[in-house]
Amino acid sequence: MVRRNMIYLTRKCEFSASHYYHNPQWTEEENRRVFGKCANLNGHGHNYTLEVTVKGEIDAATGFVIDLKQLKDLLNREVLEAMDHRHLNKEVPEFASRIPTTENIAIAIWQRLEKKLHLAKLHRVRLYELPDLFVDYYGEA
Amino acid sequence: MVRRNMIYLTRKCEFSASHYYHNPQWTEEENRRVFGKCANLNGHGHNYTLEVTVKGEIDAATGFVIDLKQLKDLLNREVLEAMDHRHLNKEVPEFASRIPTTENIAIAIWQRLEKKLHLAKLHRVRLYELPDLFVDYYGEA
Amino acid sequence: MVRRNMIYLTRKCEFSASHYYHNPQWTEEENRRVFGKCANLNGHGHNYTLEVTVKGEIDAATGFVIDLKQLKDLLNREVLEAMDHRHLNKEVPEFASRIPTTENIAIAIWQRLEKKLHLAKLHRVRLYELPDLFVDYYGEA
Amino acid sequence: MVRRNMIYLTRKCEFSASHYYHNPQWTEEENRRVFGKCANLNGHGHNYTLEVTVKGEIDAATGFVIDLKQLKDLLNREVLEAMDHRHLNKEVPEFASRIPTTENIAIAIWQRLEKKLHLAKLHRVRLYELPDLFVDYYGEA
Amino acid sequence: MVRRNMIYLTRKCEFSASHYYHNPQWTEEENRRVFGKCANLNGHGHNYTLEVTVKGEIDAATGFVIDLKQLKDLLNREVLEAMDHRHLNKEVPEFASRIPTTENIAIAIWQRLEKKLHLAKLHRVRLYELPDLFVDYYGEA
Amino acid sequence: MVRRNMIYLTRKCEFSASHYYHNPQWTEEENRRVFGKCANLNGHGHNYTLEVTVKGEIDAATGFVIDLKQLKDLLNREVLEAMDHRHLNKEVPEFASRIPTTENIAIAIWQRLEKKLHLAKLHRVRLYELPDLFVDYYGEA
Repeated sequence: MVRRNMIYLTRKCEFSASHYYHNPQWTEEENRRVFGKCANLNGHGHNYTLEVTVKGEIDAATGFVIDLKQLKDLLNREVLEAMDHRHLNKEVPEFASRIPTTENIAIAIWQRLEKKLHLAKLHRVRLYELPDLFVDYYGEA
Repeated sequence: MVRRNMIYLTRKCEFSASHYYHNPQWTEEENRRVFGKCANLNGHGHNYTLEVTVKGEIDAATGFVIDLKQLKDLLNREVLEAMDHRHLNKEVPEFASRIPTTENIAIAIWQRLEKKLHLAKLHRVRLYELPDLFVDYYGEA
Repeated sequence: MVRRNMIYLTRKCEFSASHYYHNPQWTEEENRRVFGKCANLNGHGHNYTLEVTVKGEIDAATGFVIDLKQLKDLLNREVLEAMDHRHLNKEVPEFASRIPTTENIAIAIWQRLEKKLHLAKLHRVRLYELPDLFVDYYGEA
Repeated sequence: MVRRNMIYLTRKCEFSASHYYHNPQWTEEENRRVFGKCANLNGHGHNYTLEVTVKGEIDAATGFVIDLKQLKDLLNREVLEAMDHRHLNKEVPEFASRIPTTENIAIAIWQRLEKKLHLAKLHRVRLYELPDLFVDYYGEA
Repeated sequence: MVRRNMIYLTRKCEFSASHYYHNPQWTEEENRRVFGKCANLNGHGHNYTLEVTVKGEIDAATGFVIDLKQLKDLLNREVLEAMDHRHLNKEVPEFASRIPTTENIAIAIWQRLEKKLHLAKLHRVRLYELPDLFVDYYGEA
Repeated sequence: MVRRNMIYLTRKCEFSASHYYHNPQWTEEENRRVFGKCANLNGHGHNYTLEVTVKGEIDAATGFVIDLKQLKDLLNREVLEAMDHRHLNKEVPEFASRIPTTENIAIAIWQRLEKKLHLAKLHRVRLYELPDLFVDYYGEA
């Protein structure tokens, strides 16, 4: 029997983006009541902090769960190029029809990463909108 | 079948309080031996950092798991008004008979929140007494 | 002779805003070359962290340099209401004709606060655009 | 002429203490109006973060401005033993007649350190009462 | 039936160490290709931040899950004395034959603590190599 | 007369390096007595955090004190390539004859940057060896 050691590895990165909250099926008054200052259609922005956790067994030859350079390249290509210094409502396709709340952004990031991550299993996407507010998504469907 | 997305949302807040550790069934010497400087009956204090995690499915109309304003109001009303700028041993009823250790404060906060939280399910209470010491409580009974 | 104790007191707060960098006297190509991703006219955003430092002597009756509630109200009224959850280029008058770089935002905040602060002397405005990038302004003219 | 390199070295440490704000020359109502929740005579507490900065020239033999172990011992002996896990109003002599505001605590720490520090010159005492509130004292008289 | 409250308590500490990554079965070129700058045999170093989480029920007499002084002593004796201010490849036996990656260091720390921890159950070892990179190990075999 | 606005801009970056403290004119016993665990010739390491502050007037056309890309390139070329993932005693020329204390590393970084920085004036080098220990150097001679 082979002894296996499951390790969870987390990488943090940041991106800066704009967004606003607006449900087109509601009146402006309803949008303002539910979303408050976030309903301002001029948009406002955040420094989002993203933590991506993968899990897997350690490769005995390298001592690594995942090649960190490949993970970093994946985050750059699939998330940062699409979202950093962007207006989420206007420039990221997932948010043409979904409101870019922290919850929905986390799910969009999960979906972008999961289909491209072949080196280890995606375990969690944690996204901070503010230092005192974050969401976790584990891909539960 | 409806696809459901479970999201965990965490909100941080802080409160400043005093406490001391003292077991009335013990001698002063025993209290001093077990609790050290924390046994000083003049009290000492901390900036507690509280992280409350709720979980639930995303509301399609808002993109939210929970209305953040309602969550903030709940934390203010049930926790901060009772504990912020208070002496926990002297002013918070739960600690009339229980020592206000970080462990017991976390459980008291869980119990206060769980019975009032109707918008989502309470998942975890994390309480930092110091930046390098915290406890987690998941309501296991 | 009266012994005087000069104290510097600093209060932090945060606001979330959008901006872009664009010089209307330049071609789009020049803007893109100088400002890079920041030239995207859809805008992007940040969680700005603002530290405001005032200085003064301690009031013997209170032990305070400044009434913290009045300082907080001033920051809310003069800075946060104008800039939080706003698009700086579109909604803050100072940036109709000046580019809202971190440097220029810090100066605008200084000018807003200095003319309303009567309780103590404004000493420094520090503004973080990112956790690893900040500017300081001391009002030197 | 000898080339001299002035270096400023800062050491951080933390202590946990209780206090309340109360001016005995005022009515309870005045105390409550000026000091708000801080006037609660049961006390409340904080994790104070102290940054002590000394300055001096580098010792060529060691590369040090100050022996860090001696600086740490000094902080422990003069500040932490007196204030950590203490009630400042009741147990620290400086606050028998002065209100233990962040401003006054910083000055008390400066006075305690300055008379015992022979290895380098005390430059600044910075004291955080909360992560978003701190004072600086440079010993100006 | 006794109501039991499971609490997870986490203690952080730091240590500073050197290491390099090198697989003796590979050529220098292979080592450089896989490990990049980490393959430099002169070594480089980190301030590692270690978070150790234990779990257990609260002791009714103390309000504690674990005696913090005993936990601190255990961390000092089993981890910090062995690894702080050390060269991991040259001075820590586990890394004579295993590469001291963050993954392998976390497992080594788990194994050192688990066999000596009798007061509560070890739940997780989290190790930060950098502020934006950490691993978690739960002892899964 | 032209009104000038002096702004101080600070950029943070990190590097990981090894070092040890050793004065070749002393016996091993003296080295051990003065430098303690830092005298271990196997070396140990840190994640150094570097803050570089420049000052200057704002360029009216860009709103910048300094081109951030050029500043970043300068830090990469003059500091990070020389010191990141290096053994300071063995690989950085300044420390062939000077002990790589935090003080001396800060001065070496100042000297490397000052002679290459033409866009603004170097104001301060701050270097953290640990989160609770840092030095500041202003180039005073």
